[in-house]
Amino acid sequence: MTEPQIEPQSAGVVAPATARFDDVLRLRSGGRLDGYELVYEIYGELNAARSNAVLVCHALSGSHHVAGRYADEDEDSGWWNNLVGPGKPLDTRKFFVIGINNLGGCNGSTGPRSLNLATGRPWGADFPFVTVEDWVDAQARLADELGIDSFAAVIGGSLGGMQALSWTLQYPERVRHAAVIASAPKLSAQNIAFNEVARQAILTDPDFHDGHFYEHGVAPERGLRLARMVGHITYLSDDAMGEKFGRSLCHGKAVYSYGIEFEIESYLRHQGDKFARQFDANTYLLTTKALDYYDPAFAHGGDLIAALAAARAGFLVVAFTTDWRFAPARSREIVYALAHNGCDVSYAEIDCPAGHDSFLLADPQYHAVLAAWFDRIEV
Amino acid sequence: MTEPQIEPQSAGVVAPATARFDDVLRLRSGGRLDGYELVYEIYGELNAARSNAVLVCHALSGSHHVAGRYADEDEDSGWWNNLVGPGKPLDTRKFFVIGINNLGGCNGSTGPRSLNLATGRPWGADFPFVTVEDWVDAQARLADELGIDSFAAVIGGSLGGMQALSWTLQYPERVRHAAVIASAPKLSAQNIAFNEVARQAILTDPDFHDGHFYEHGVAPERGLRLARMVGHITYLSDDAMGEKFGRSLCHGKAVYSYGIEFEIESYLRHQGDKFARQFDANTYLLTTKALDYYDPAFAHGGDLIAALAAARAGFLVVAFTTDWRFAPARSREIVYALAHNGCDVSYAEIDCPAGHDSFLLADPQYHAVLAAWFDRIEV
Repeated sequence: MTEPQIEPQSAGVVAPATARFDDVLRLRSGGRLDGYELVYEIYGELNAARSNAVLVCHALSGSHHVAGRYADEDEDSGWWNNLVGPGKPLDTRKFFVIGINNLGGCNGSTGPRSLNLATGRPWGADFPFVTVEDWVDAQARLADELGIDSFAAVIGGSLGGMQALSWTLQYPERVRHAAVIASAPKLSAQNIAFNEVARQAILTDPDFHDGHFYEHGVAPERGLRLARMVGHITYLSDDAMGEKFGRSLCHGKAVYSYGIEFEIESYLRHQGDKFARQFDANTYLLTTKALDYYDPAFAHGGDLIAALAAARAGFLVVAFTTDWRFAPARSREIVYALAHNGCDVSYAEIDCPAGHDSFLLADPQYHAVLAAWFDRIEV
Repeated sequence: MTEPQIEPQSAGVVAPATARFDDVLRLRSGGRLDGYELVYEIYGELNAARSNAVLVCHALSGSHHVAGRYADEDEDSGWWNNLVGPGKPLDTRKFFVIGINNLGGCNGSTGPRSLNLATGRPWGADFPFVTVEDWVDAQARLADELGIDSFAAVIGGSLGGMQALSWTLQYPERVRHAAVIASAPKLSAQNIAFNEVARQAILTDPDFHDGHFYEHGVAPERGLRLARMVGHITYLSDDAMGEKFGRSLCHGKAVYSYGIEFEIESYLRHQGDKFARQFDANTYLLTTKALDYYDPAFAHGGDLIAALAAARAGFLVVAFTTDWRFAPARSREIVYALAHNGCDVSYAEIDCPAGHDSFLLADPQYHAVLAAWFDRIEV
């Protein structure tokens, strides 16, 4: 029997691990979890000084599976596989990389699908609201568990970037560098509006059953599908969509039906269908709320400079010119506030056509910036 | 009894009229209507030369009720009331203005709610697909009926602008001027994508019943509500939404619920609820498809210059800097093609913060441009 081929720079075959926590976790929402599990994955090796750990924080639909593949797969399937591996920008020959599924997630960590011991049924919509800050607290406990006092870096894109930023404020002594990519210091009204449409699609789906759909053997797939379709529009730039799909007609001409006519319709429906089968609607709801609530300046009367004063890390902030979900101006707000506070901050604005999704792609300029930044980090 | 106060520049108390057509109308979709009714309203008086008529074409959710108010109302309720009236930019002392509800509409003209004589039940989703060109054909028949050989002007915003443009191509000898406002020569992939999300919201609503929901005594209000919420996001600019709503919290702080927390959520839900009670889901579907299909250059291999070669009218093209649904670049495509063909075309790019919705507002610069343009038109 021939071993399957593994690409030279692959993180290889990986397997998730589970950490169990029995201490109470008090949440910003006033809720609490008396115990919980976090699923995570590791790539590379922790050095003797335990100083080379990098935490990768995921965005709305990500997970702990950042790089490599599982034993039963033929190809690498990690969501940031192009970034993480031996010889890749986040080089696993140098760094010990950790991917984690956030609390409230649907990929193995304790979340709405988990059993609520108090009721004997799945948490469903009763799962307490979790915030970016709560996630960081939970991640810090995992770091304790793994014996990591201080991260060489925390990195994330979009909602993941908010977690990276929050790490530098909640645990300034525990994170030496932070990469905040395609992110924002808070959502705009328009960002919240898109999230609200997604939530209303799920909440008003008759199969939602007030969030306890598991017991009914159904799922609000119609709503989740619509939510994902709306999301996808905001992940791509108008130009990227135009170049990829334009007004191409699947049948070469108008056929006058509500079936698929334009290729963009086919793409959106496919993305929506796929996501609705895999993802959990309650996790989607929780996660969009965490996005909406994130606003470190709120407690400082809206003053972002004051809010970021606690940060001690060295920063890399990256934005993409065609990202209209979190436009470069939003990243620059973070850069200005950090620079004003005397932080060591690098800023790169990458001219990649793919919109918000650019942060997931292997744009050469983008990856060169990341590679150089990680290369300079001492471990 | 005191007469209600009417503002000096009001079009006053108006009443809709109905025109009945018994000739077959063949549609671009291959469908046909053996007879139909069009509801319209008039403001001002047709002059003796019958040369002062202006047709106002409506957009997605508009109607024939352009200006003034109905006898049982206390206030003017026309959707373009700020534009049309005595002394207003489209001055009814000079012009005879006509508003019309398009075929397939839900405000009185023959549409999905009307009885399909072939089946004895409402048309529902069996109502034939109608295009911008079909609407213009139907409008031309109304002009025949009213004894109007040639319009002094045809004006419309957004989808209404597409009708105004199409008039100049389908009936170049019957339209002397055309105002194409906040419009585009065709939808982009992103525009189609938003329409597709709206359609999927309606089509997958369990209350849609394949478009024959009237017989079930229900309506796909959940879907229509979501469609309208998505639409509203695209009608406003990010900045306008930010200025109007920002991140204002209805309760002053996060309360961690799926109820209304941010003011933008309240606004969107209200707009969605209101629309879902009033509008017809089948009309919404048909109208978004008419938008998607509109592409006069398609028959010319994508060559817009060739497509617009038939136009003889004098044009005013207006775009708004903050309109990201139909950005100024889309209007400029029309302007360039018209100018290349030697047409008389004026172009105004108005710096109004309200996004696509600007075309409905009384921005002083915008209205000054319109007033001057209408003033120069000889009748």
